Amino acid sequence: MKLIIDAMGGDRGLSEAVKGVADASLEVDSLFVIVGDEEKIREELAPLEADHAKIDVVGAECTVEMTDDPMVILGSKRNSSMGVGLKLLKEDGDAFISSGNTGALFTGASAIIRGAPGVKRAAIATILPFEFPILLLDSGANVNVIPEYFVEWARLGTIYAKNVLGVEDPAVGLLNNGTEPHKGGQTRAEAYALLSDLPGIRFVGNVESSELAHAPCDVLLTDGFTGNVTLKLIEGMSAYFFSTMKHIMTESVLTKIASVPLSGRVKELKNVFDPTEYGGAPILGLSKPVIKAHGSSGAQAITAAIRRAEAFVRSGATEMIIEEEKKAGERSGEK
Amino acid sequence: MKLIIDAMGGDRGLSEAVKGVADASLEVDSLFVIVGDEEKIREELAPLEADHAKIDVVGAECTVEMTDDPMVILGSKRNSSMGVGLKLLKEDGDAFISSGNTGALFTGASAIIRGAPGVKRAAIATILPFEFPILLLDSGANVNVIPEYFVEWARLGTIYAKNVLGVEDPAVGLLNNGTEPHKGGQTRAEAYALLSDLPGIRFVGNVESSELAHAPCDVLLTDGFTGNVTLKLIEGMSAYFFSTMKHIMTESVLTKIASVPLSGRVKELKNVFDPTEYGGAPILGLSKPVIKAHGSSGAQAITAAIRRAEAFVRSGATEMIIEEEKKAGERSGEK
Repeated sequence: MKLIIDAMGGDRGLSEAVKGVADASLEVDSLFVIVGDEEKIREELAPLEADHAKIDVVGAECTVEMTDDPMVILGSKRNSSMGVGLKLLKEDGDAFISSGNTGALFTGASAIIRGAPGVKRAAIATILPFEFPILLLDSGANVNVIPEYFVEWARLGTIYAKNVLGVEDPAVGLLNNGTEPHKGGQTRAEAYALLSDLPGIRFVGNVESSELAHAPCDVLLTDGFTGNVTLKLIEGMSAYFFSTMKHIMTESVLTKIASVPLSGRVKELKNVFDPTEYGGAPILGLSKPVIKAHGSSGAQAITAAIRRAEAFVRSGATEMIIEEEKKAGERSGEK
Repeated sequence: MKLIIDAMGGDRGLSEAVKGVADASLEVDSLFVIVGDEEKIREELAPLEADHAKIDVVGAECTVEMTDDPMVILGSKRNSSMGVGLKLLKEDGDAFISSGNTGALFTGASAIIRGAPGVKRAAIATILPFEFPILLLDSGANVNVIPEYFVEWARLGTIYAKNVLGVEDPAVGLLNNGTEPHKGGQTRAEAYALLSDLPGIRFVGNVESSELAHAPCDVLLTDGFTGNVTLKLIEGMSAYFFSTMKHIMTESVLTKIASVPLSGRVKELKNVFDPTEYGGAPILGLSKPVIKAHGSSGAQAITAAIRRAEAFVRSGATEMIIEEEKKAGERSGEK
């Protein structure tokens, strides 16, 4: 197996990405290719404890920045670390991991890796960080949707949840503004009807956002706009809560002492909501696995994303997706 | 001034609504009409401390339940407490307050009270409960939107924030999946362009949901679907967070003792996120004020909604909205 890692473009810099690969090399049975500023990568890598024989470094001219227009990946920055990484994936790689610009990664992957045969629209599947995590798709790529996308994403999400995340018989919900089947406008009402009648999918109906903390489903379907708002609101709310709690707990000598027996449990709760703990967000529906690691991934998060990518490749989920979409195409052809 | 209050349909029952009116009668200079089960209302009201001379009771046949289809308000349940209340408002009332079914209230108000002259589409404006509260519109009524609605809601929200909530020069933001002007699909990109060029509106651009806790704006524009998801996610997240904190703080004798110096401040934070503390959500753009009190409003929340309704009427915001929309209509006619 050959896993390709973009060392550039993340918020926390090249050294964290390199450290993440070095650590992964000691436990994951794969070859690794780190792409980016070759000299700096080699400099960072040399002193680290790693299985150096398994790690290769490939240079790239430039970096796609977070603020760049996604289209640069196909134009002025096609030779960036992200662009080079995607090309290496296409040639003979097994998966690509980047913590860079999400839009550029989706655009580049869709154009260079291309969709898996039979897939209409790839989606970004992000794990919502709750005590019982939920796989949300689409979490940002497709602002405009049709009912058929939800149906396809139900299949993609179910395969990934079952075979990569290890969820037995995943429950699939549709994010909506009420639980009744007609809710959420025409697109969602039509999607509800289609999903209710979908072979091999355990559809549990509409899910309201107020319920997300209470394990309403394993896979949650929505459009990329609402998905993005949901994801960022969870991040923003939990960051606000924990920074306010920290403030409360450290306000005075008294509260600092009082907080000692509580801080371990508050820390645990905080970790539940840490988006970098979940091994990254796969773009589902491509011909080969591409994983978006969180923008603020440190070494640990990169290692977790590598583990996830390895599990993704090993599971054969991409092949299953191609097989399922082929069957679905045949079924709709029969009608 | 005559304020009409629906005693039925809320989650916490008639007695809380009646108590809320009784308390309000002691401080708010207005007549009050309570609508619902007349016998029960009189029974609850009689022993309460109240300015009884200012309170009238009107009977109604039935109640719109939370689970009812919104259309019942115009059909089988047109003589419900909500239906009767809206008719009383139309005849000679000044504002109507209900903690019942939101969809039915919006449908009934739109049909019976009707939009203010010049207003294309009324919207529900809910206060997002943060340290610096944000007026969100639309928070549930309009799933499908066009750019012109956002423009209109910017004017409605600004007038309400300034004249009823007392915000000086309100900052208006557009909820989006990125800060760049082109973000969020065509409707939002067009809205961004229109809002940037709107006389009398302080548009601060796109706002991401991750920023909501950090006072990015006073008025936040979005479609009713995303608004509903946002609102309910904030409620669900804060409920989850505070119930988990309570669990942590009361786990053992040790943590209970340790929590004593912290609990006051945690309670304060919890109150910030209590949606019933904010005096209800007005439907903006109607010919007369209609306020949706939170479904789980207790007496205090009803009193707060009455205070807010009184301020709404006294401010003349409805007349200002009519004036502004007339001017806007003339401006667009000139083009």
